[in-house]
Amino acid sequence: MKITVLSGGVGGARFLRGLREHVRALPGDHEITAIVNVGDDMWLTGLRIAPDLDSIMYTLAGENDEVRGWGRTGESERVSGELKAYGVGWDWFTLGDLDIGTHLARTSYLRSGIPLSEATARITARWPLGVTLLPATDDEVETQVHVDGGSMHFQEWWTRHRAALPALSFEYRNALQASPAPGVLDAISGADVILVAPSNPVVSIGPILAIPGVREALLAATAPVVGVSPIIGGAVVRGMADACLAAIGVATAADAVAVHYGPRSRGGLLDAWLVDDADAALVPSIEEAGIAAGAVPLWMRDLDTSAAIAAQALAAAARL
Amino acid sequence: MKITVLSGGVGGARFLRGLREHVRALPGDHEITAIVNVGDDMWLTGLRIAPDLDSIMYTLAGENDEVRGWGRTGESERVSGELKAYGVGWDWFTLGDLDIGTHLARTSYLRSGIPLSEATARITARWPLGVTLLPATDDEVETQVHVDGGSMHFQEWWTRHRAALPALSFEYRNALQASPAPGVLDAISGADVILVAPSNPVVSIGPILAIPGVREALLAATAPVVGVSPIIGGAVVRGMADACLAAIGVATAADAVAVHYGPRSRGGLLDAWLVDDADAALVPSIEEAGIAAGAVPLWMRDLDTSAAIAAQALAAAARL
Repeated sequence: MKITVLSGGVGGARFLRGLREHVRALPGDHEITAIVNVGDDMWLTGLRIAPDLDSIMYTLAGENDEVRGWGRTGESERVSGELKAYGVGWDWFTLGDLDIGTHLARTSYLRSGIPLSEATARITARWPLGVTLLPATDDEVETQVHVDGGSMHFQEWWTRHRAALPALSFEYRNALQASPAPGVLDAISGADVILVAPSNPVVSIGPILAIPGVREALLAATAPVVGVSPIIGGAVVRGMADACLAAIGVATAADAVAVHYGPRSRGGLLDAWLVDDADAALVPSIEEAGIAAGAVPLWMRDLDTSAAIAAQALAAAARL
Repeated sequence: MKITVLSGGVGGARFLRGLREHVRALPGDHEITAIVNVGDDMWLTGLRIAPDLDSIMYTLAGENDEVRGWGRTGESERVSGELKAYGVGWDWFTLGDLDIGTHLARTSYLRSGIPLSEATARITARWPLGVTLLPATDDEVETQVHVDGGSMHFQEWWTRHRAALPALSFEYRNALQASPAPGVLDAISGADVILVAPSNPVVSIGPILAIPGVREALLAATAPVVGVSPIIGGAVVRGMADACLAAIGVATAADAVAVHYGPRSRGGLLDAWLVDDADAALVPSIEEAGIAAGAVPLWMRDLDTSAAIAAQALAAAARL
């Protein structure tokens, strides 16, 4: 079975780890490919930072910091201390030393003309991840947030301002000039199942869909597309997706996000959508919108619950 | 008094620290400007490394590792460990974490279009160095070593091969297309005294002199030019300058280096040359070559002996 997952960072990472766990227990050979958002990527002090690719890599490698919720375990900040002393970089954005190792490896490849997808393949080869990571594009597509008086990189809005500045709109800068990375369209067209991770619809999944060719490939895919809601009981599970949804006029509700993605039968993304048991009452309205829906436990508390969610997503796909 | 020093890395750093110490004890206001070799600079894993500028900065800041002889005190190698695990970079060349902070600050400036001289001014502003550091050029002039079968960056020949591969020649790549950095020619023409630090004549002082305009400015300068021998008793004080001198057909001897630099009266570099007491017998032959010479203790054992050498160099200049 070939499973392709559209994914952002932390939520996507946990979902992918659960999916890998579930699939390992299944008979037969299975391949998981993650198409990963690059809209959060940026240049900072000469380094190319790719937060979502790295969050997934660290999580699947077992190297993520479970307590802090992001970055490497056993991290230190010796280099960042120097950058602050020199007054270089963003003083509200601290890079860990181990993390800088990853950024330097990536930057080194990019500066020598190797595209992000190949750089990612070489970097992830360090660990047996059990999941192939494909950046959505090799081009530099960066999410800009328009606020009153100007715009800024998503990372500045998210980390520095804690998403507290009202967002007027999100722009996937350069997306229209970008192309899917090698392997992305094949991973969609050749998949047996396509899953949409419980990632931020606006700034994680949105930038992937904005790459010309991706939506078309998803519409043409023979595989069913099943999404997992990142909203439970009218609240975001993690992060500040509500501030993003509000900016694009979508309610922070599991059914609203499903309708935002839209039914594939009418040019949208989804064949099916999983909501949490707490949102079971929303199932009829989602189905009325043309999307098969089911209510299951969606809290990714640990590896077992994440694996169970992945199993439910595959079961929903099998029912289609 | 305005004192301008041509300098390489470690030896130049100790000489400059001694000079600063000596000058602090003199009455009046004095300015020290170091014109620093950039031939050892290189790009490595996307970072711009400038070993000589950094050696001088760390030493003058009191942040250098006195025991190891190079790099920062209290250094760690967390990032380098990651780079090795990713298989990126030179596995024989370890970058310290604190040092990487400096490289990232510099790279960040360079990537945003700020030239090396301005980047150096901003980076060195962190500490009250008491010496203005000017890279010889803002252009990328890198010393290549030609050996049997090919050529390599000086750093690879020096650090990886410990200067053990016979060098056929040294090439200051791109030097003829380079220009002196802003301030360099003024520091020469406006100086009251010009000193040549006891640095490697071939790979530290040579690349400075190779920048078009520098030799001409030194010839036209009103200030006397006094050099300090890096060779004592027929041996190099530190490093492997003998392997460099051999390649250009110069003996490892204090008089041979003086003759290699040549007397300024005949288009060379030097008005005067200081050798160690151990080489006092060479003084007549150096004076015969048209260079005033004197023998004084030249071992830079500590701050006091370094300051005494600087005092002798200034005294030699005063005698001219």
